[in-house]
Amino acid sequence: MKVLVVGANGQIGKHLVRFIQGSDSMEARAMIRKQEQASFFEGLGAETAVVDLEDDVDVIEKAAEGVDTVVFTAGSGGNTGKDKTLMIDLDGAVKTIEAAKTAGVKRFVMISSFDTTRRAIQEANENFSPYVVAKHYADEWLKATDLDYTIIHPGLLTNDEGTGMVNAAPEVNRDEVPREDIARTILASLENDKSIGKEFQVVKGATAIKDAIDPMK
Amino acid sequence: MKVLVVGANGQIGKHLVRFIQGSDSMEARAMIRKQEQASFFEGLGAETAVVDLEDDVDVIEKAAEGVDTVVFTAGSGGNTGKDKTLMIDLDGAVKTIEAAKTAGVKRFVMISSFDTTRRAIQEANENFSPYVVAKHYADEWLKATDLDYTIIHPGLLTNDEGTGMVNAAPEVNRDEVPREDIARTILASLENDKSIGKEFQVVKGATAIKDAIDPMK
Repeated sequence: MKVLVVGANGQIGKHLVRFIQGSDSMEARAMIRKQEQASFFEGLGAETAVVDLEDDVDVIEKAAEGVDTVVFTAGSGGNTGKDKTLMIDLDGAVKTIEAAKTAGVKRFVMISSFDTTRRAIQEANENFSPYVVAKHYADEWLKATDLDYTIIHPGLLTNDEGTGMVNAAPEVNRDEVPREDIARTILASLENDKSIGKEFQVVKGATAIKDAIDPMK
Repeated sequence: MKVLVVGANGQIGKHLVRFIQGSDSMEARAMIRKQEQASFFEGLGAETAVVDLEDDVDVIEKAAEGVDTVVFTAGSGGNTGKDKTLMIDLDGAVKTIEAAKTAGVKRFVMISSFDTTRRAIQEANENFSPYVVAKHYADEWLKATDLDYTIIHPGLLTNDEGTGMVNAAPEVNRDEVPREDIARTILASLENDKSIGKEFQVVKGATAIKDAIDPMK
Protein backbone atom coordinates (compact mmCIF):
# COMPACT_ATOMS: atom_id res chain seq x y z
CA MET A 1 0.00 0.00 0.00
CA LYS A 2 1.47 3.35 -1.04
CA VAL A 3 0.48 6.26 1.20
CA LEU A 4 0.68 9.94 0.31
CA VAL A 5 1.35 11.81 3.54
CA VAL A 6 0.18 15.42 3.12
CA GLY A 7 1.90 17.63 5.67
CA ALA A 8 4.74 15.13 6.02
CA ASN A 9 7.12 17.72 7.42
CA GLY A 10 4.88 18.35 10.43
CA GLN A 11 5.60 16.55 13.67
CA ILE A 12 2.87 13.92 13.25
CA GLY A 13 3.82 13.56 9.59
CA LYS A 14 7.45 12.81 10.36
CA HIS A 15 6.50 10.10 12.87
CA LEU A 16 4.03 8.66 10.38
CA VAL A 17 6.45 8.43 7.48
CA ARG A 18 8.95 6.75 9.80
CA PHE A 19 6.36 4.16 10.92
CA ILE A 20 5.17 3.53 7.36
CA GLN A 21 8.71 2.99 6.13
CA GLY A 22 9.24 0.60 9.06
CA SER A 23 6.17 -1.46 8.20
CA ASP A 24 6.18 -4.51 5.91
CA SER A 25 3.13 -3.69 3.85
CA MET A 26 3.34 0.06 3.23
CA GLU A 27 5.53 2.72 1.71
CA ALA A 28 5.22 6.48 1.98
CA ARG A 29 5.32 9.37 -0.44
CA ALA A 30 6.02 12.48 1.64
CA MET A 31 4.29 15.60 0.33
CA ILE A 32 6.35 18.59 1.46
CA ARG A 33 6.31 22.29 0.72
CA LYS A 34 10.01 22.88 0.14
CA GLN A 35 12.75 20.90 -1.57
CA GLU A 36 15.08 21.43 1.40
CA GLN A 37 12.72 19.36 3.56
CA ALA A 38 13.29 16.29 1.36
CA SER A 39 16.52 14.92 2.85
CA PHE A 40 14.86 13.71 6.07
CA PHE A 41 12.42 11.58 4.07
CA GLU A 42 14.99 10.41 1.54
CA GLY A 43 17.00 9.22 4.54
CA LEU A 44 14.01 7.02 5.43
CA GLY A 45 13.84 5.69 1.89
CA ALA A 46 10.55 7.45 1.18
CA GLU A 47 9.51 9.17 -2.05
CA THR A 48 8.89 12.90 -1.88
CA ALA A 49 6.65 15.31 -3.76
CA VAL A 50 7.14 19.07 -3.45
CA VAL A 51 3.71 20.74 -3.47
CA ASP A 52 2.31 23.86 -1.85
CA LEU A 53 -1.29 23.38 -0.67
CA GLU A 54 -2.06 26.78 -2.15
CA ASP A 55 -1.14 25.39 -5.58
CA ASP A 56 -3.73 24.40 -8.16
CA VAL A 57 -5.66 21.21 -7.44
CA ASP A 58 -4.04 19.50 -10.44
CA VAL A 59 -0.60 19.91 -8.86
CA ILE A 60 -1.88 18.03 -5.80
CA GLU A 61 -3.54 15.48 -8.07
CA LYS A 62 -0.21 14.74 -9.72
CA ALA A 63 1.31 14.03 -6.28
CA ALA A 64 -1.58 11.65 -5.54
CA GLU A 65 -1.20 9.61 -8.72
CA GLY A 66 -0.38 5.97 -8.12
CA VAL A 67 -1.00 5.95 -4.37
CA ASP A 68 -3.63 3.85 -2.60
CA THR A 69 -4.23 6.13 0.35
CA VAL A 70 -4.00 9.81 1.23
CA VAL A 71 -3.41 10.96 4.81
CA PHE A 72 -4.06 14.65 5.42
CA THR A 73 -2.10 15.85 8.42
CA ALA A 74 -1.22 19.35 7.23
CA GLY A 75 -2.11 22.42 9.22
CA SER A 76 -1.50 26.13 8.86
CA GLY A 77 -0.11 26.24 12.40
CA GLY A 78 -0.74 28.68 15.20
CA ASN A 79 1.68 31.34 13.99
CA THR A 80 -0.01 32.24 10.72
CA GLY A 81 -2.97 34.51 10.16
CA LYS A 82 -6.58 33.48 9.75
CA ASP A 83 -6.16 33.82 5.97
CA LYS A 84 -3.99 30.70 6.08
CA THR A 85 -6.65 28.93 8.15
CA LEU A 86 -8.99 29.41 5.22
CA MET A 87 -6.42 28.63 2.53
CA ILE A 88 -4.76 25.58 4.12
CA ASP A 89 -7.01 24.03 6.78
CA LEU A 90 -10.15 24.40 4.71
CA ASP A 91 -9.29 24.92 1.05
CA GLY A 92 -6.04 22.92 1.10
CA ALA A 93 -7.90 20.00 2.67
CA VAL A 94 -10.77 20.15 0.19
CA LYS A 95 -8.40 20.41 -2.77
CA THR A 96 -6.58 17.34 -1.47
CA ILE A 97 -9.89 15.45 -1.19
CA GLU A 98 -10.81 16.45 -4.74
CA ALA A 99 -7.33 15.53 -5.98
CA ALA A 100 -7.65 12.09 -4.38
CA LYS A 101 -10.97 11.53 -6.15
CA THR A 102 -9.60 12.58 -9.52
CA ALA A 103 -6.47 10.48 -9.09
CA GLY A 104 -8.61 7.43 -8.34
CA VAL A 105 -7.49 7.08 -4.71
CA LYS A 106 -10.18 5.40 -2.61
CA ARG A 107 -8.87 5.65 0.97
CA PHE A 108 -8.53 8.95 2.84
CA VAL A 109 -7.51 9.53 6.44
CA MET A 110 -8.12 13.02 7.80
CA ILE A 111 -6.41 14.36 10.90
CA SER A 112 -9.01 16.75 12.20
CA SER A 113 -9.16 18.64 15.49
CA PHE A 114 -10.65 17.29 18.72
CA ASP A 115 -14.20 18.52 18.22
CA THR A 116 -15.43 19.95 14.92
CA THR A 117 -19.15 19.83 15.62
CA ARG A 118 -21.46 22.80 15.21
CA ARG A 119 -21.64 23.01 19.02
CA ALA A 120 -17.85 23.21 19.23
CA ILE A 121 -17.82 26.15 16.80
CA GLN A 122 -20.24 28.04 19.03
CA GLU A 123 -18.39 27.20 22.23
CA ALA A 124 -14.90 28.06 20.94
CA ASN A 125 -13.44 31.44 21.83
CA GLU A 126 -13.13 34.12 19.16
CA ASN A 127 -9.50 33.33 18.45
CA PHE A 128 -10.02 29.60 17.98
CA SER A 129 -13.43 29.43 16.31
CA PRO A 130 -12.24 30.18 12.72
CA TYR A 131 -9.97 27.12 12.94
CA VAL A 132 -12.86 24.96 14.15
CA VAL A 133 -15.00 26.28 11.29
CA ALA A 134 -12.30 25.39 8.75
CA LYS A 135 -11.87 21.87 10.13
CA HIS A 136 -15.65 21.43 10.38
CA TYR A 137 -16.17 22.16 6.69
CA ALA A 138 -13.20 20.02 5.62
CA ASP A 139 -14.62 17.08 7.60
CA GLU A 140 -18.11 17.63 6.20
CA TRP A 141 -16.72 17.80 2.66
CA LEU A 142 -14.92 14.49 3.12
CA LYS A 143 -17.97 12.76 4.59
CA ALA A 144 -20.05 13.85 1.61
CA THR A 145 -17.73 12.04 -0.83
CA ASP A 146 -17.62 8.37 -1.78
CA LEU A 147 -14.09 8.03 -0.42
CA ASP A 148 -13.33 5.35 2.20
CA TYR A 149 -12.63 7.88 4.91
CA THR A 150 -11.48 7.77 8.50
CA ILE A 151 -11.50 11.00 10.53
CA ILE A 152 -9.24 11.12 13.55
CA HIS A 153 -9.90 13.81 16.18
CA PRO A 154 -6.83 14.06 18.43
CA GLY A 155 -6.86 15.62 21.90
CA LEU A 156 -4.30 18.21 23.00
CA LEU A 157 -1.15 17.24 21.13
CA THR A 158 2.11 16.89 23.08
CA ASN A 159 5.65 15.92 22.17
CA ASP A 160 5.76 13.29 24.93
CA GLU A 161 7.09 9.92 23.89
CA GLY A 162 4.37 7.63 22.62
CA THR A 163 3.09 4.79 24.79
CA GLY A 164 1.34 2.71 22.14
CA MET A 165 -1.81 3.03 24.25
CA VAL A 166 -4.75 5.41 23.77
CA ASN A 167 -8.40 5.94 24.56
CA ALA A 168 -10.37 6.18 21.30
CA ALA A 169 -14.12 6.44 20.81
CA PRO A 170 -16.62 8.74 19.06
CA GLU A 171 -16.69 10.81 22.26
CA VAL A 172 -14.06 10.78 25.00
CA ASN A 173 -13.12 13.31 27.68
CA ARG A 174 -10.70 15.95 26.40
CA ASP A 175 -7.13 15.12 27.39
CA GLU A 176 -3.59 15.20 26.09
CA VAL A 177 -2.19 12.75 23.56
CA PRO A 178 1.38 12.38 22.24
CA ARG A 179 1.81 13.13 18.54
CA GLU A 180 3.68 9.85 18.21
CA ASP A 181 0.60 7.93 19.34
CA ILE A 182 -1.55 9.80 16.83
CA ALA A 183 0.85 8.69 14.10
CA ARG A 184 0.52 5.09 15.37
CA THR A 185 -3.27 5.51 15.38
CA ILE A 186 -3.17 6.56 11.72
CA LEU A 187 -1.08 3.51 10.89
CA ALA A 188 -3.44 1.20 12.78
CA SER A 189 -6.41 2.75 10.94
CA LEU A 190 -4.75 2.07 7.60
CA GLU A 191 -4.26 -1.56 8.66
CA ASN A 192 -7.87 -2.07 9.73
CA ASP A 193 -10.67 -1.57 7.21
CA LYS A 194 -13.19 -1.48 10.05
CA SER A 195 -12.07 2.13 10.56
CA ILE A 196 -13.56 3.05 7.17
CA GLY A 197 -16.52 5.41 7.42
CA LYS A 198 -15.72 6.09 11.07
CA GLU A 199 -14.57 9.12 13.03
CA PHE A 200 -13.30 9.04 16.57
CA GLN A 201 -11.57 11.15 19.20
CA VAL A 202 -8.20 9.97 20.51
CA VAL A 203 -6.54 10.86 23.83
CA LYS A 204 -3.96 9.13 25.98
CA GLY A 205 -5.26 5.94 27.55
CA ALA A 206 -4.74 2.36 28.55
CA THR A 207 -5.82 0.38 25.50
CA ALA A 208 -3.40 -0.89 22.89
CA ILE A 209 -3.89 1.28 19.77
CA LYS A 210 -4.84 -1.64 17.49
CA ASP A 211 -7.62 -2.62 19.88
CA ALA A 212 -8.67 0.94 20.68
CA ILE A 213 -9.53 1.80 17.08
CA ASP A 214 -11.29 -1.50 16.34
CA PRO A 215 -14.99 -0.93 16.92
CA MET A 216 -15.60 -4.68 17.09
CA LYS A 217 -13.45 -5.16 20.17
CA MET B 1 -44.55 36.91 0.51
CA LYS B 2 -42.55 37.68 3.65
CA VAL B 3 -38.82 38.09 3.10
CA LEU B 4 -36.13 37.86 5.76
CA VAL B 5 -33.32 40.19 4.67
CA VAL B 6 -30.09 39.06 6.35
CA GLY B 7 -27.61 41.91 6.40
CA ALA B 8 -30.41 44.45 6.08
CA ASN B 9 -28.29 47.28 7.45
CA GLY B 10 -25.80 46.96 4.60
CA GLN B 11 -26.14 49.25 1.61
CA ILE B 12 -27.76 46.63 -0.65
CA GLY B 13 -29.92 45.50 2.25
CA LYS B 14 -31.31 48.98 2.88
CA HIS B 15 -32.24 49.44 -0.78
CA LEU B 16 -33.83 45.99 -0.81
CA VAL B 17 -36.00 46.53 2.28
CA ARG B 18 -37.15 49.83 0.80
CA PHE B 19 -38.10 48.17 -2.50
CA ILE B 20 -39.84 45.26 -0.76
CA GLN B 21 -41.88 47.61 1.42
CA GLY B 22 -42.81 49.55 -1.72
CA SER B 23 -44.05 46.45 -3.53
CA ASP B 24 -47.62 45.20 -3.45
CA SER B 25 -46.93 41.53 -2.83
CA MET B 26 -44.07 41.45 -0.35
CA GLU B 27 -43.10 42.58 3.11
CA ALA B 28 -39.68 42.52 4.73
CA ARG B 29 -38.29 41.41 8.06
CA ALA B 30 -34.94 43.17 8.47
CA MET B 31 -32.35 41.08 10.28
CA ILE B 32 -29.92 43.50 11.93
CA ARG B 33 -27.08 43.15 14.37
CA LYS B 34 -27.89 45.99 16.74
CA GLN B 35 -31.13 47.36 18.17
CA GLU B 36 -30.07 50.94 17.33
CA GLN B 37 -30.21 50.02 13.61
CA ALA B 38 -33.95 49.26 13.88
CA SER B 39 -35.41 52.77 13.50
CA PHE B 40 -34.58 53.04 9.77
CA PHE B 41 -36.53 49.85 9.05
CA GLU B 42 -39.38 50.68 11.42
CA GLY B 43 -39.70 53.94 9.51
CA LEU B 44 -40.31 51.84 6.38
CA GLY B 45 -42.93 49.77 8.22
CA ALA B 46 -40.75 46.65 8.20
CA GLU B 47 -40.40 44.11 10.98
CA THR B 48 -36.96 43.76 12.55
CA ALA B 49 -35.06 40.90 14.19
CA VAL B 50 -31.85 41.57 16.12
CA VAL B 51 -29.45 38.69 15.47
CA ASP B 52 -25.67 38.44 15.28
CA LEU B 53 -24.53 35.99 12.60
CA GLU B 54 -22.05 34.63 15.12
CA ASP B 55 -24.99 33.58 17.31
CA ASP B 56 -26.21 29.99 17.53
CA VAL B 57 -28.03 28.67 14.49
CA ASP B 58 -31.27 28.40 16.50
CA VAL B 59 -31.24 32.17 17.08
CA ILE B 60 -31.13 32.65 13.31
CA GLU B 61 -33.81 29.98 12.88
CA LYS B 62 -36.11 31.94 15.19
CA ALA B 63 -35.67 35.01 12.98
CA ALA B 64 -36.55 32.90 9.93
CA GLU B 65 -39.76 31.51 11.34
CA GLY B 66 -42.85 32.45 9.39
CA VAL B 67 -41.07 33.88 6.36
CA ASP B 68 -41.32 32.54 2.81
CA THR B 69 -37.92 33.64 1.58
CA VAL B 70 -34.48 34.38 2.95
CA VAL B 71 -32.12 36.81 1.19
CA PHE B 72 -28.51 36.65 2.39
CA THR B 73 -26.76 39.94 1.68
CA ALA B 74 -24.54 40.12 4.77
CA GLY B 75 -20.80 40.48 4.53
CA SER B 76 -17.97 40.90 6.96
CA GLY B 77 -16.75 43.95 5.06
CA GLY B 78 -13.28 44.92 4.00
CA ASN B 79 -12.22 46.40 7.33
CA THR B 80 -12.39 43.25 9.44
CA GLY B 81 -9.84 40.47 9.74
CA LYS B 82 -9.84 37.17 7.93
CA ASP B 83 -11.33 35.55 11.06
CA LYS B 84 -14.57 37.40 10.28
CA THR B 85 -14.39 36.20 6.68
CA LEU B 86 -14.60 32.66 8.05
CA MET B 87 -17.18 33.41 10.73
CA ILE B 88 -19.55 35.62 8.70
CA ASP B 89 -19.06 35.07 4.97
CA LEU B 90 -18.74 31.30 5.30
CA ASP B 91 -20.15 30.12 8.61
CA GLY B 92 -22.76 32.87 8.97
CA ALA B 93 -24.03 32.06 5.48
CA VAL B 94 -24.15 28.31 6.11
CA LYS B 95 -25.90 28.78 9.45
CA THR B 96 -28.48 30.94 7.70
CA ILE B 97 -29.00 28.23 5.06
CA GLU B 98 -29.42 25.59 7.76
CA ALA B 99 -31.75 27.88 9.73
CA ALA B 100 -33.90 28.38 6.62
CA LYS B 101 -34.18 24.61 6.15
CA THR B 102 -35.13 24.00 9.78
CA ALA B 103 -37.64 26.85 9.76
CA GLY B 104 -39.30 25.36 6.68
CA VAL B 105 -38.36 28.22 4.33
CA LYS B 106 -38.11 27.02 0.72
CA ARG B 107 -36.72 30.02 -1.16
CA PHE B 108 -33.20 31.38 -0.68
CA VAL B 109 -31.43 34.15 -2.56
CA MET B 110 -27.69 34.42 -2.00
CA ILE B 111 -25.69 37.55 -2.81
CA SER B 112 -22.33 36.08 -3.66
CA SER B 113 -19.25 37.71 -5.14
CA PHE B 114 -18.57 38.12 -8.85
CA ASP B 115 -16.70 34.87 -9.41
CA THR B 116 -16.56 32.11 -6.81
CA THR B 117 -15.28 29.32 -9.01
CA ARG B 118 -12.27 27.19 -8.18
CA ARG B 119 -10.39 29.04 -10.92
CA ALA B 120 -11.20 32.39 -9.31
CA ILE B 121 -9.76 31.18 -6.00
CA GLN B 122 -6.48 30.32 -7.71
CA GLU B 123 -6.34 33.57 -9.65
CA ALA B 124 -7.17 35.88 -6.74
CA ASN B 125 -4.33 37.65 -4.98
CA GLU B 126 -3.32 36.55 -1.50
CA ASN B 127 -5.33 39.24 0.22
CA PHE B 128 -8.56 38.50 -1.62
CA SER B 129 -8.45 34.71 -2.00
CA PRO B 130 -9.73 33.85 1.53
CA TYR B 131 -12.88 35.84 0.79
CA VAL B 132 -13.35 33.98 -2.50
CA VAL B 133 -12.87 30.67 -0.67
CA ALA B 134 -15.50 31.61 1.92
CA LYS B 135 -18.03 32.64 -0.74
CA HIS B 136 -17.20 29.54 -2.82
CA TYR B 137 -18.04 27.19 0.03
CA ALA B 138 -21.17 29.10 1.00
CA ASP B 139 -22.42 28.88 -2.59
CA GLU B 140 -21.54 25.18 -2.83
CA TRP B 141 -23.33 24.50 0.45
CA LEU B 142 -26.47 26.21 -0.80
CA LYS B 143 -26.44 24.36 -4.13
CA ALA B 144 -26.21 21.03 -2.30
CA THR B 145 -29.48 21.71 -0.44
CA ASP B 146 -33.05 21.20 -1.59
CA LEU B 147 -33.77 24.90 -1.22
CA ASP B 148 -35.13 26.86 -4.19
CA TYR B 149 -32.01 28.95 -4.55
CA THR B 150 -30.88 31.84 -6.71
CA ILE B 151 -27.24 32.95 -6.53
CA ILE B 152 -26.50 36.48 -7.68
CA HIS B 153 -22.86 37.36 -8.50
CA PRO B 154 -22.58 41.16 -8.65
CA GLY B 155 -19.74 43.00 -10.36
CA LEU B 156 -17.80 45.81 -8.72
CA LEU B 157 -20.35 47.49 -6.46
CA THR B 158 -20.77 51.25 -6.63
CA ASN B 159 -23.02 53.76 -4.90
CA ASP B 160 -24.09 55.25 -8.23
CA GLU B 161 -27.80 55.75 -8.63
CA GLY B 162 -29.52 52.72 -10.11
CA THR B 163 -30.63 52.73 -13.73
CA GLY B 164 -33.04 49.80 -13.66
CA MET B 165 -30.92 48.25 -16.43
CA VAL B 166 -28.25 45.55 -16.14
CA ASN B 167 -26.39 42.90 -18.04
CA ALA B 168 -27.02 39.51 -16.41
CA ALA B 169 -25.91 36.06 -17.56
CA PRO B 170 -23.98 33.05 -16.20
CA GLU B 171 -20.82 34.75 -17.47
CA VAL B 172 -20.42 38.41 -18.34
CA ASN B 173 -17.38 40.68 -18.55
CA ARG B 174 -16.38 42.13 -15.20
CA ASP B 175 -17.71 45.65 -14.77
CA GLU B 176 -19.24 47.98 -12.22
CA VAL B 177 -22.82 47.77 -11.02
CA PRO B 178 -24.75 50.10 -8.68
CA ARG B 179 -25.85 48.53 -5.40
CA GLU B 180 -29.33 49.87 -6.03
CA ASP B 181 -29.57 47.81 -9.24
CA ILE B 182 -28.44 44.70 -7.38
CA ALA B 183 -31.26 45.27 -4.89
CA ARG B 184 -33.67 45.56 -7.81
CA THR B 185 -32.22 42.38 -9.30
CA ILE B 186 -32.94 40.56 -6.04
CA LEU B 187 -36.52 41.83 -6.10
CA ALA B 188 -36.96 40.76 -9.72
CA SER B 189 -35.59 37.30 -8.88
CA LEU B 190 -38.10 36.93 -6.06
CA GLU B 191 -40.87 37.84 -8.50
CA ASN B 192 -39.79 35.32 -11.16
CA ASP B 193 -39.65 31.62 -10.30
CA LYS B 194 -37.60 30.99 -13.43
CA SER B 195 -34.63 32.29 -11.42
CA ILE B 196 -34.89 29.24 -9.13
CA GLY B 197 -31.89 26.92 -9.39
CA LYS B 198 -29.96 29.55 -11.33
CA GLU B 199 -26.87 31.63 -10.70
CA PHE B 200 -25.77 34.58 -12.76
CA GLN B 201 -23.34 37.48 -12.82
CA VAL B 202 -24.76 41.00 -12.91
CA VAL B 203 -23.06 44.18 -14.13
CA LYS B 204 -24.34 47.49 -15.47
CA GLY B 205 -26.01 47.15 -18.83
CA ALA B 206 -28.77 48.03 -21.20
CA THR B 207 -31.47 45.45 -20.49
CA ALA B 208 -34.40 46.08 -18.16
CA ILE B 209 -33.74 44.07 -14.99
CA LYS B 210 -36.93 42.00 -15.24
CA ASP B 211 -35.95 40.87 -18.73
CA ALA B 212 -32.26 40.47 -17.93
CA ILE B 213 -32.83 37.85 -15.23
CA ASP B 214 -35.45 35.92 -17.20
CA PRO B 215 -33.64 33.09 -18.97
CA MET B 216 -36.57 32.63 -21.33
CA LYS B 217 -36.27 36.08 -22.81
